[in-house]
Amino acid sequence: MHLNIDSDQLWQDIRANGNLGSVPTDDPEANARTVLAGSKANEDARDRLISRMQEIGLSVSVDAVGNILGEWYPEGVSQDADPVVAGSHLDSVPSGGIFDGPLGVYGALEAVRAVKEGSADATLTAPLGVVCFTEEEGARFSDGLLGSSVASGARDLDATLAETDDDGVSLGDALESIGYQGEGRLDVSEWAGWYELHIEQDTTLETAAVPVGVVTTITGITRCDVTITGQANHAGATGMTDRTDALAAASEFILNVETAAAGVAAEDSDTAVGTVGSLSVSPGATNVVPGQVTMGVDIRDVDADPIETIVTAARESLARLETDRDVDTTITRPFDLRPVEMSSHLRDAAHKAGEAAGVSTHNLHSGAAHDSMNVARHTDAALLFAPSRDGISHNPREWTDPDDCADATRVLAGSILETASR
Amino acid sequence: MHLNIDSDQLWQDIRANGNLGSVPTDDPEANARTVLAGSKANEDARDRLISRMQEIGLSVSVDAVGNILGEWYPEGVSQDADPVVAGSHLDSVPSGGIFDGPLGVYGALEAVRAVKEGSADATLTAPLGVVCFTEEEGARFSDGLLGSSVASGARDLDATLAETDDDGVSLGDALESIGYQGEGRLDVSEWAGWYELHIEQDTTLETAAVPVGVVTTITGITRCDVTITGQANHAGATGMTDRTDALAAASEFILNVETAAAGVAAEDSDTAVGTVGSLSVSPGATNVVPGQVTMGVDIRDVDADPIETIVTAARESLARLETDRDVDTTITRPFDLRPVEMSSHLRDAAHKAGEAAGVSTHNLHSGAAHDSMNVARHTDAALLFAPSRDGISHNPREWTDPDDCADATRVLAGSILETASR
Repeated sequence: MHLNIDSDQLWQDIRANGNLGSVPTDDPEANARTVLAGSKANEDARDRLISRMQEIGLSVSVDAVGNILGEWYPEGVSQDADPVVAGSHLDSVPSGGIFDGPLGVYGALEAVRAVKEGSADATLTAPLGVVCFTEEEGARFSDGLLGSSVASGARDLDATLAETDDDGVSLGDALESIGYQGEGRLDVSEWAGWYELHIEQDTTLETAAVPVGVVTTITGITRCDVTITGQANHAGATGMTDRTDALAAASEFILNVETAAAGVAAEDSDTAVGTVGSLSVSPGATNVVPGQVTMGVDIRDVDADPIETIVTAARESLARLETDRDVDTTITRPFDLRPVEMSSHLRDAAHKAGEAAGVSTHNLHSGAAHDSMNVARHTDAALLFAPSRDGISHNPREWTDPDDCADATRVLAGSILETASR
Repeated sequence: MHLNIDSDQLWQDIRANGNLGSVPTDDPEANARTVLAGSKANEDARDRLISRMQEIGLSVSVDAVGNILGEWYPEGVSQDADPVVAGSHLDSVPSGGIFDGPLGVYGALEAVRAVKEGSADATLTAPLGVVCFTEEEGARFSDGLLGSSVASGARDLDATLAETDDDGVSLGDALESIGYQGEGRLDVSEWAGWYELHIEQDTTLETAAVPVGVVTTITGITRCDVTITGQANHAGATGMTDRTDALAAASEFILNVETAAAGVAAEDSDTAVGTVGSLSVSPGATNVVPGQVTMGVDIRDVDADPIETIVTAARESLARLETDRDVDTTITRPFDLRPVEMSSHLRDAAHKAGEAAGVSTHNLHSGAAHDSMNVARHTDAALLFAPSRDGISHNPREWTDPDDCADATRVLAGSILETASR
């Protein structure tokens, strides 16, 4: 069966979706969008996706957390057969790029369309599905991977709907307000297999000049919330020896985390990373010695032990700061994902599809979390990567060439066909 | 002449004013208020002050930037005579304390009332005035000392009225909306002398167990705005050696400023301080390597040279970070006040008034900026301090004992009497 990928349509889908929630930028190479889960921009992006799903003949349903599923049952395939599903997400970080998520959703749509169009040649034994998961980024509600964690049973439905954003708006109310609180719960354990296409967000493929990556393992992730409390005081009237400056203490902590992660990466596991990405100072006035700092720490590796080494270093840093700087500190660990292996079975299908399409493929790991982590706990899952220019993502300068988008979608379509034909 | 300070009325004024703009707090020892210039809370505080001024027989006027003046002309004193004026401010930092500012305004009111009440015994040669300056803290508009800088001619009236807050509201519109945009311009050069009573905001008086401080010099202040730009990127997919983390660079900068200020304080001038009090991270998500950090730096000393030493260290830190971490940096210096000596003449009057009242006084410097800096450039000015418990200010736990408030007001009243009788 010949799979005819319409690369122009795919590119048009990505660009048109990228205009929804777009944020003005002066940089001619930049495309910024802010598409927070349950926002107007998210409503627009969902509306467009459903319209496109219907155009190619998929039947659409929305579950209680807003996960969207478009399904197609080939002739002769039972309504009870487990589907082969592909997809990703449409939400973004604030001022994020246009590829992170949408490439996987519209790539899946185009792949399924191509398989459907060519299906007269094939003997498909499974239905095909395209999925858009809700709130993958965690930029508004929760810690991310929200829709897939509900669909995999890792997160309770009602508790998830009650999660609130910084303004106290619940996920349930936000979805309701944009008309995307559906019914029931998507269940990944009923799927015969899952493919996600995503941008790499690193430079492995770019450096190797290979258009498609096949992920072996998705990194484990821990997030730690840290508070350092000193003493707010007048910046002019409080002498250097009389102050307990929470921000100076936090600065030592940030550098300790960086040093620990760089040390583990250099000596033990080069995939290990540790980042303090968010920080808030209170009271935050230039003429007041900082009284309290809260920080979010992100620690990852494909192996579990290096993560623990960095967490331990972070705890030791705080203990030392309590002694050296007389601050009070707290650290919690609200988010903890173990590393996850991808299905060797589906990885083989992907390499085989690459070979058939004349597109070279490359094994690599994923340093970013993906919905595929949740899916992989319940069924065969594979994660494909397309190159990211300069490895940049979560940034308006995120970019993947149209040819790479199309090549990756070719491999995705071939993989789906292979898995749905067995 | 006997000066009969009504300590109960003074305390009631401070407490009642402290309830305006009050912010709930769980700490039974805390009194938080947020009184931003031109806000409803500021309107309430101004209304209350004017009502109290009128009760004791002062004639009230408001100038174009909202500075309030209450005047009293003793019998036989010419309308052309230059007044002896005392006062401070009623605005606060967000969640500030109840003494910083109001003690000086209501202390001046009670001092003038006491002099007026006992004036039959005295031969006053000058009118007396009580002043409340607008926007001393700079928490909403400009960099602070706003009202006194207009009244001293340092700042242009129209440009000041056009200053906007973070929401784009101009000072002129904010004052208009609360009914406090008056006419004309208070002119400190027409005053015979100026006294400001303020809390110390440090522990010198508390440690010495002396109830009143007489300031010799007010510290010089420089503010620097610093930007460090790295590369926002995915926290998981960007290896430790591939990132340009603006927050890690900023952490080094913060510690460099702290080390430089502590070094100057230890070796050169123990009054020198350097603080990074405000910091903002962009994009500020836990799973994104920080791309940009902006910071506000506050550097002070009673001598000019140590300030320059710390500024130079800050610049050198940024230059080193550009080389070591490949970040881009900018530093501007939008705010620069030279150290200011207080009038030896009025300081003598204050010490003499303390002796007459049986209240001990103590020379010290001010590490905080005060409106007295602006006034001192055009007429004799003195700044008196009352003790701050634990040196805490700009904080809901700011506290000055009622007895100390009364003692300081006794010295203030005696000083005013001495200066207005010569």
